[in-house]
Order: sequence, then C-alpha cells, then structure tokens
Amino acid sequence: MIIVLKPGTTQSDADEIIAKIDALGLKSLYMPGTERTVLGALGDERLIGQLHLENDPRVEEVKPILAPYKLVSRELHPHDTVVTIGKASVGGDRFLVVAGPCAIESRAQLHDTATAVKSAGAGALRGGAFKPRTSPYSFQGLGYEGLALLREVARELDLPAITEVVEARDVAAVVEHADALQVGARNMQNFQLLKELGGCGKPVVLKRGMAATIEDLLLAAEYIVSEGNPDVVLCERGIRTFETATRNTLDLNAIPFIKHTSHLPVLVDPSHGTGRRELVAAMARAAVACGADGVMIEVHRNPAEALSDGQQSLFPQQFADLMRSLRPFVTAVGKTL
Amino acid sequence: MIIVLKPGTTQSDADEIIAKIDALGLKSLYMPGTERTVLGALGDERLIGQLHLENDPRVEEVKPILAPYKLVSRELHPHDTVVTIGKASVGGDRFLVVAGPCAIESRAQLHDTATAVKSAGAGALRGGAFKPRTSPYSFQGLGYEGLALLREVARELDLPAITEVVEARDVAAVVEHADALQVGARNMQNFQLLKELGGCGKPVVLKRGMAATIEDLLLAAEYIVSEGNPDVVLCERGIRTFETATRNTLDLNAIPFIKHTSHLPVLVDPSHGTGRRELVAAMARAAVACGADGVMIEVHRNPAEALSDGQQSLFPQQFADLMRSLRPFVTAVGKTL
Amino acid sequence: MIIVLKPGTTQSDADEIIAKIDALGLKSLYMPGTERTVLGALGDERLIGQLHLENDPRVEEVKPILAPYKLVSRELHPHDTVVTIGKASVGGDRFLVVAGPCAIESRAQLHDTATAVKSAGAGALRGGAFKPRTSPYSFQGLGYEGLALLREVARELDLPAITEVVEARDVAAVVEHADALQVGARNMQNFQLLKELGGCGKPVVLKRGMAATIEDLLLAAEYIVSEGNPDVVLCERGIRTFETATRNTLDLNAIPFIKHTSHLPVLVDPSHGTGRRELVAAMARAAVACGADGVMIEVHRNPAEALSDGQQSLFPQQFADLMRSLRPFVTAVGKTL
Amino acid sequence: MIIVLKPGTTQSDADEIIAKIDALGLKSLYMPGTERTVLGALGDERLIGQLHLENDPRVEEVKPILAPYKLVSRELHPHDTVVTIGKASVGGDRFLVVAGPCAIESRAQLHDTATAVKSAGAGALRGGAFKPRTSPYSFQGLGYEGLALLREVARELDLPAITEVVEARDVAAVVEHADALQVGARNMQNFQLLKELGGCGKPVVLKRGMAATIEDLLLAAEYIVSEGNPDVVLCERGIRTFETATRNTLDLNAIPFIKHTSHLPVLVDPSHGTGRRELVAAMARAAVACGADGVMIEVHRNPAEALSDGQQSLFPQQFADLMRSLRPFVTAVGKTL
Repeated sequence: MIIVLKPGTTQSDADEIIAKIDALGLKSLYMPGTERTVLGALGDERLIGQLHLENDPRVEEVKPILAPYKLVSRELHPHDTVVTIGKASVGGDRFLVVAGPCAIESRAQLHDTATAVKSAGAGALRGGAFKPRTSPYSFQGLGYEGLALLREVARELDLPAITEVVEARDVAAVVEHADALQVGARNMQNFQLLKELGGCGKPVVLKRGMAATIEDLLLAAEYIVSEGNPDVVLCERGIRTFETATRNTLDLNAIPFIKHTSHLPVLVDPSHGTGRRELVAAMARAAVACGADGVMIEVHRNPAEALSDGQQSLFPQQFADLMRSLRPFVTAVGKTL
Repeated sequence: MIIVLKPGTTQSDADEIIAKIDALGLKSLYMPGTERTVLGALGDERLIGQLHLENDPRVEEVKPILAPYKLVSRELHPHDTVVTIGKASVGGDRFLVVAGPCAIESRAQLHDTATAVKSAGAGALRGGAFKPRTSPYSFQGLGYEGLALLREVARELDLPAITEVVEARDVAAVVEHADALQVGARNMQNFQLLKELGGCGKPVVLKRGMAATIEDLLLAAEYIVSEGNPDVVLCERGIRTFETATRNTLDLNAIPFIKHTSHLPVLVDPSHGTGRRELVAAMARAAVACGADGVMIEVHRNPAEALSDGQQSLFPQQFADLMRSLRPFVTAVGKTL
Repeated sequence: MIIVLKPGTTQSDADEIIAKIDALGLKSLYMPGTERTVLGALGDERLIGQLHLENDPRVEEVKPILAPYKLVSRELHPHDTVVTIGKASVGGDRFLVVAGPCAIESRAQLHDTATAVKSAGAGALRGGAFKPRTSPYSFQGLGYEGLALLREVARELDLPAITEVVEARDVAAVVEHADALQVGARNMQNFQLLKELGGCGKPVVLKRGMAATIEDLLLAAEYIVSEGNPDVVLCERGIRTFETATRNTLDLNAIPFIKHTSHLPVLVDPSHGTGRRELVAAMARAAVACGADGVMIEVHRNPAEALSDGQQSLFPQQFADLMRSLRPFVTAVGKTL
Repeated sequence: MIIVLKPGTTQSDADEIIAKIDALGLKSLYMPGTERTVLGALGDERLIGQLHLENDPRVEEVKPILAPYKLVSRELHPHDTVVTIGKASVGGDRFLVVAGPCAIESRAQLHDTATAVKSAGAGALRGGAFKPRTSPYSFQGLGYEGLALLREVARELDLPAITEVVEARDVAAVVEHADALQVGARNMQNFQLLKELGGCGKPVVLKRGMAATIEDLLLAAEYIVSEGNPDVVLCERGIRTFETATRNTLDLNAIPFIKHTSHLPVLVDPSHGTGRRELVAAMARAAVACGADGVMIEVHRNPAEALSDGQQSLFPQQFADLMRSLRPFVTAVGKTL
C-alpha cells in the first residue's frame, strides 16, 4: 500500500505513521520527495486496511497495490472453475445456454416455453417466481406457487432449473426447488442474502448490479465464496449509462476482463442487456465471441402476452434460430454447447 | 397513453389494438399519419399498462402521459407532508439536521459523538448497527448489540434515533429501537423490505440508490406508502457517474425537482454525496439553499479512528462550525432549525 | 408530435395552440383526458419543431414520434451503404480491418508498423498526425510533417490511408494526403468541422463522442450527409461510464441498433473501447459477431516505446494472431475480409 | 510515481526499469513484496511520464502521485485569481451574475432582454452568435451579424459582453466584439481552439464538457494558461448521467472541489445544468451557497418564442425575482454582487 502525505506534513508525522505500520509487523518505506512525502507499507493489504490510514487528516491519498478480492482471483487459483448445475455444467470448455420466461405466469405458459427451449437445445431452464419490479403496480410473480411449478416442469422435461431468490429468509425454500439460485442485479449488494447463499449448498448465479463496477461484482462473489460456497457463476446483464436507445448498456468488456482476473465462469444476459428483442441474437453471438461461458435468454411462448419484460423476450422460433446461429461461433472459440 | 405503430402496420392491425383498448372501457384514438400510425388510449394508465402493448411486435413505442407513481405525487396531494420522528419533525418549514457516526463502534464512541452533535444543535441522531460493506473483509457493524447501544444513548440524551435496516426479517426488532428506519442506497429496490416497512408503523428514511433515477426513488416510496405507511422521508445521497474526484455525484437538481413533483420531505446526505470531509460543509449549505428539508451528516468523535467512512466524517468541531454556518441559509429560505 | 398540456390548462389555451399547428398546414388533434389534455400534430416534425412548443409554459412535455435524423435513416434508404476508401470498401458484405499506430512518430516507426499490418492482412492504414491530448504536456503529433509521411508510406505500400482532422481549416490539406478523414470522439460535435467535411469529397470516419448517445452520433452524421457527402462511416469507440477497470465502456449494443436504424456502415475501435492491450482481440471478435462492418486497431512496431496510447496498442505479432482468429467469425457472419 | 510490476517479473526486469529512471536523473526506489514488486520514481512526474512505463508489458499499473496540471493548481498559486471582464470582475469576494439570451435572434430581442437583465442587476451580458446544435435542422445562430449586434447593444447599455467562439479561425474576430470569450461544453477539448485562446489577450470562460472529469477541465484550462493567458474562468454546467428528469446533472460537488484545488474562479450555469426553467432559481442559490464565484443564467424577453433552449430560459420577471432572492445568500458567503 502506498500512502501519500499532504504537503506540509512533518517528519514526526511521518514517523508516527511509520510506527503504526511497523507495529503490525509490516515492512514500511519512507520516500521523501520535493512535493510530497510518500510512505509504503508492504505485506497483507487487508491487515494494513485495519489502520484506516485514509481517514487520517495528514494523509492525502492511499493507493492499494493489490485487488481487494482474493478467493475469486485467478492469481490464487489459475485454473477455470467449472460449475455443475444439475446435469449441465458451465466454465472451461462448456458453453451453457439458459433460457425460459422472465416470470412464471402459469403451468401452461411455463411448460410450453420450456418445451420449446429444450427442443431448440437450451441446457437449462430459467423462470422467476419472485419478481422485483420497479413499480408496486406491476406483476410481482407467483411466489411459492411459481417455485412449485418450476420444480414440476423442470423435472418433467429433465432440465436443470435456475430461479431468483430475493430474500435471505427464502433461501432454504428455493434451494428445495431449483438447481441453481440467481441473485438479481438489484440484490447484488444485499450482503445478508449473499452470506446466506454462502452456506446454501447449491450453485449461485450472481448478476452484476446496474451501478456495480467489475470489482464490486467480484467482491460480491467473494462474500459467497468466503462463506464456503465455491460454485459461483457471474453474469453480466448491462449497466446503467446515459444511453437510452437500449434499456441497459451491455458491458462486454467485462467478459475478457473477468476471464483474465478471475477463475469463475461468466454468463451474459443479452435480454436485459439490451431490453429489445431485435438486438438479443446479435449480442448473444458477441458474448460467445468475446469469451463468455454461456448466455441467459428470455423466451416466452407468446411475448405479446408476457406479464413482464415482453419487449425483450424472444418468440420460440426466434430462439431456435438463435441457437442455430450460435453454433459456428461456439465452435470458433473452441467450446462445446 | 400514446402508442406508435411500426411502419407497414395495416389498418386491421390498428383496429385489433383499438378493440383491446375499447374493451377495457377506455377511450381510444386513431391518428393515421404519413410516416406512422399513432393510437391514443385515454384513461387510467395503470389499467392500460395491463395490455402490455409495448410487447406487441407491431408496436414501435409506447409513450405514457402520466407519471407511474400516484400516492407520493404532489398532484394528488398538493400540501407538504411533515413527518414526525420522535420529538423532531421534517418537512414544511422545519429543517432537520441528523448527525452521528456512520457505524456504532462502542458505547463510548457513540456517546461521545452523540453528545457533541447534540450540543452543536443536531435534531436527531444517526448511527448504523448493520453495515452493508462492499468487501466481506470490512467491519460489518455490531448488529443487535449496536441497536441496543443506540436506543440507550438516544434515550439518555433525549435525541430521536435513526438507524438502517437491511432485511425484512429485522424490521420488527429495529422498530423497537429506533424512531425512524433508514433504507440504504443498496436496498432502495429491495421490494420485500419496502413492503415490510409499509406496515411497520414508524417513519422511513429512504435513500436514493446509486443507479436510481428520481422516478425510481419515487416508485420505491410508492411501495411503502401504498402498503399503508405515509411517513416517508426521501434522501439524496449521490449517484454513480464517471467522475472519480468525489465518491459520488450529489444530484442536487433532484431536490427542487422532487419538491415540485412530490409532497414528501427530502433530506440531503453530503457525507456520502461527496465522500470527502473537506467538501461536506459547502454541500450542506447548498442543500439548504436549493430547498432540502434537512441534511444528514456523518460525525465521529475521532474520524482518524473510524471503522467505516472516516474520510467523509467530520470532527466534532467541524460539525459545530457547520451548524453555525448553516443558520443564515436556513433563515434565508424561510425555515427554522 | 404529441403535446401534453399542464394540468389546469384551459380550453382556450388548447385552442390557441391548435390554431398554431393548423396555421402550419399540419393536422391537429385534441384529446382531452381526465388528468391531462393531450394535443397531436401530424405531419413533418421538423416543421412542427419550428413552433418550439416545448418552450410554452402551458406545455408539460413534447413527445416526438419520428427520429430527428432522416438522410442517414434506413427507413428512407433501406439498402446498406458501401463506402469506398481508396481500393478498400466497407459496408454490405465487406469487412474492413483498419490498423496502424495511434500517432505517427517517425518515418521508420510508421513504415515498420504499416509493413507489419499489411503483411498480416489489414485493408487500410491508420495513423494520427494531429493528436488531441488531454494534457498540454503530452506529445501533440507531428502535424503536417506526419501527414506527408503517411501519404508517402501509404503509397509505397499501396494501402488506403485514414487520418484524423481536428479543425475545419485543415480539411483541405488533409484531403490531399488521405483516402478518408477521421473525426475523433472529442470533435464529434464540432459542427463547423462536420459542415466542412460535408463538402470535402472524401469519405469520413465519424467516431462516437464519449458522452454521445447513438441519436447524437446519427445527427452528427446527418450534418455531413446533409451538406452533400454521403460517404460516412460510423465508429463505436466506447463511452464514458462509472466503470474504471477499462478506459471506456465499449457499447456494442450500438452496432445492431445502428444496423437496424441506419444504412451507414459502422466500425468498432476496441483499442480505445477497452484501453488495454490484452482485451483488444476478444472485443474485435465480438464486434464481428454482432454485425460490425469492420474494426480499427492500434498497432505499434514496439508499443513499449509508443508516444501515445501504448497500453492499448498491439505488438505486430499480436495483430497477426488477431487477424487469424477473426477469419472464422467473419465467415460465420457471411462477410469477406 | 509508483510503478507496480506484474507478478513473475524478474530482478533483472526491475533493474532495467530502475536504470531508465536513474538515467533521467530521478531518484528510484525498489520495493520487493511477497505478491508484487513495486518501484518508485521521485521527482518531476512529467519527466517520468516521458518514459511511458505504462506501455511496458512487464508493468501492471503506474500510479502518479501528483496532479497532472500545475499552473492552474492552488498548490503553486495559493491566492484566488480575480478575472476582470470589462468593468466587471469575478473571483475573490466578487460574485458575478451573467445573464442574457441563449442565442441572439434579432436586435430587438437582444436589446429588450439585455435591458431587463441590466435593470434587475446582472453584471454582464451573455448571448450566442454561433450556436452548436445537435441537429443540423435547428437554428444555427446569426454568426457575424449576431456578434455585431452584441457589441452594439452591450456598448449602448454599458454591460460587459461574453459570447461563445466555436473555431480557432474565428478567435480574432470574436475578440473584437466581446469582453470575454466562452468555450462551450462541446469544445472543451478542442485543443486547437484552446491554444489559440492562450494568445488572444481577453478572458476565457471555459465550460466543462458533458463527459469531462474535473481533472479534464483543469487540464483544458492548463492549455490556455500555459499558452500565456492567465485569465480563465471555469464554468460547471452539468454532466451527462443516466438521470433523464433533468437535461444534465449539475455537479455542484465540483465547486468546492475546484476551490480547494485551483485558484481560478468558477461559475455555475444552472440553465444548462437543469434544462428546466422551474429549477433554475433553486440551483442558482445552491451555487452561491457552495462557493461559486458567479452564475450564468439564460433569460429571454419571451421564452415561449425562443429559437433555442427556451425551456430553460427565464422570463424577465423570473430573473428579477431570482436576483432578489440571491442577495441574502451572497451576503451569507461573505461576497458582494
């Protein structure tokens, strides 16, 4: 850690701070310059963090040298993590397509949609029972009834099921009904929920928050892994920017950046990432090309009747076309569907 | 609601959509143009929303006429809401200064800080027991022990107490210990929590999320009010932008905008809004000047030792100076401290 | 155009505004509702724009129906525009790779780099003579001397040359030395420059500004086309967001959006779009996959010595590897290099 | 400057880089750690910048210690700069209100508006002759004719005149007609223009770009000052964020930040900063309260007829009310109007 002192700081100020660093058993460095005095503290940065030197009025800036996450970092764990979700797997050379409706609306709606995505080649089924909606006047999901429908349809069709959990107190129930639990963008920093998922025994799909940096996302994953659950799949789903032509700005830069930095698999959700049906297929192909380990696609048996996110849901035929068009790209990156 | 049809849509497509509008008992309008056909649907927009016309592949765009919130809107409720928090009140012509430490660290730390802010003139005490932190390796708060300390110190000093609640399952306990419950920026769209607070019987201070538009904030407040709790105080605390010189970008535009649009009182938190101790006082004064109903300020008996957010916490003397400097501005806007 | 009147507006206010619409020879519509009166004006929206109804204190909001650009829109001109740059072409089924150094530093540096990119298969050479730099203390380019070097090397190697022009008064000189003129992100709304380029007789590569929406970009292109130059190539190069892990956020959503909306070809610049050498190849592949008509890549004979943007410049060997890896993706989208 | 080497870098790599630092006559430091080797280079950072160490593939990150601007920094020049614009002055304890129409539309429009703002107490007149407009179909200003009208009306009313210059080749002409030259947000990084203004002999009002950080703004000012013109007035006018309720997000945090960091005076433009007439007065008051040296306000004799930006222009009576309401705030900050 590098500690820049404010102009005007005295030698004795510096000595006092150096003494604190030394007292922790770390190696300190003293670098007086013409315009600033700079101190160094070498060793475990989380230990140094406990000194809270950034709070000191004599300190201008503290510059960490290492990333603040550790367990999710590729530096510690150089090989790709492969996460198993029911009979499917994601990471390494396996490319996973998760598809299904935004919200579970009825048994028939879920069954028809799931049948369609399975026959087109999807590897896992998604469907939301608890729907976080911006307006209290929008459809809020079927709740526990929806969970039961998901379990039933997924078993019938032999598809792994992924569904969102929105509260720590629901984790136990959702674990009973799904093969992987999804944390939505609005809950990425619901740390109580993350901690609970750290002990849930099932894989977690963690979506990036709308205002979350990649570092924030990796730290949220670190919460889950540090509580004992290594099976975390990250998901880029677009961030909020000034651009309004699309619902979100899909940050595909994040994919190669995460693949360099972390060993965790990463999905792309081009449905939320664009918010527009006609852009989904192109961005799913781009996701494959830049190294994503899978995509998550919203499909509805009839999007015109969808109770949520119909604008970004594909018709079953569009999804089948997308699956066909993805194959050469998956092959070109050396993966298998 | 205005419905713009895609080019190439036929008369019978338009008729079919018009029939759906009419079937809801709404008034429809048909406006054929040279480049687009435009339809109108007049009446309750939430009813029209159920048609999900934006999902229809023949529809290019749906443009709502009315704001999606209702109960929090000034149009429905033209007079300022005044919210009572213990013996303090906020809204109308009352300006409230809430101050205290970011996190409760010990009885002595809370007591010393609370004594200092009270003697400087603060109207309510803040202090966090549950701390949402970006990194799992940061101090996570004292939890229930912290709540008990807050209650004890607030009673001793006769100050209303405001503290954050981070989970729906904690609401009942927090209600016992505080005069108002705060929802943090990361939980602004934790809708389960908002619904629970709708029935909690105590005022709620709702902070704007880092990626939340003003409309999102008002819809989050609508969740609480529509569940039966009219005592909501909004709080602007900065949004996330490309600017990195400050921790967040304090969006003071939001203050006069909200005062025009909603009857709810609104606070400003210049501590999080800037993230830098030396900018807090200037932005607190700006908050008064643009019409805020109060400010929320982080103060620590010794910020250099703070376990969280020390960089943005004021020293007690700085807070006393700030209080003095605020008075002429509060007077100039016609309010009383 | 839809005109929403403020609550409390009278019938005679509405009549007065309707009279203005009728006076322009447009068709007006009157839609009184329970909460708002809405007016419509059907016909040429640019004509209606002259009324500046948004300025009227009785008007709450004006909602246009049509996009504000026309000549660049696919609606008016459904077929892809193919732009010829020297012996290269871009658009339709031709994929163009433009490569070369960020800045021209010397004859040898340019020649070595150009030779390398040509032998790896680049279709055009880029190189900057005038460098807009954030700091006055950074290398500002070789200016006219750089232009002459570019012309000389491009002729020798028989490669079309693309270079940036930063001022209207330089356009004539740059036209003499290059096959296409580039407008950089910082000049996307330098309208004097755009107008000058409308009459320059050579193709223009127009980069998206850091804070420009896609609509802003298309309107900037409309400036050039409406002045008489139809040969505009758009270029997505990343926008500024809160994410700091990468230099910019490459907005690939813009590619399929622009291909739906406009007939102009569009390039992607993953060098500026990421700012990090190790991410360039993945994002170039993603650009192909989502439908871009080409990519623009910074290459330097020795990036470690580059005077500008060395961090994002590829080594010649990396560029050769990238070219090889692009081919299957270009084939998969049905284009030819 | 702190140089963090990538993991796996050898001692001889470090030695080679250290030799380059030493060769420049700077003091180098070698700090081997368990996870990273860190180097330091003490001395003039602009000199070190010439090494372009960030380009070196062995370097993970370069962290500068000092701000990249120098002449505009308060560290070098601790006292407030006061800039004289005709008979007005700005900076120190003088608060300046600049007012007038967005665009000069006719002699009568300018004269009526200027008369109104003068009688209400404005200290300088603004009015645009060259209007950068997003769409080529919007009013582009009266050009040189507008300049002549400005000069004429300003002389008649004895008001200092400020107007925008959009091109380097126009600087000489604009200098003849105005007391200060304004650089608009879209030209903040038009470096040719900035360099030209460095030698123009008149004060420059430099507006912050929509995607410009405060550091970018200070570096743009550094261009002008380093070319010999010390009379630069900065202007915050809002940045582009995801918020769409207002035209821009006025970043008032920038005001106290700039006052700490730089000696230059800084204005606030709440007209562009909000884009909505009804929010202008509140934000002008906030600007005073947080330490701005002045405000720039758009006023039109009849905003309903304005050819540009009418939505954000005040009616003359509103401006007179604003002037009255500003006075107690100006007094409270210890300045004089």
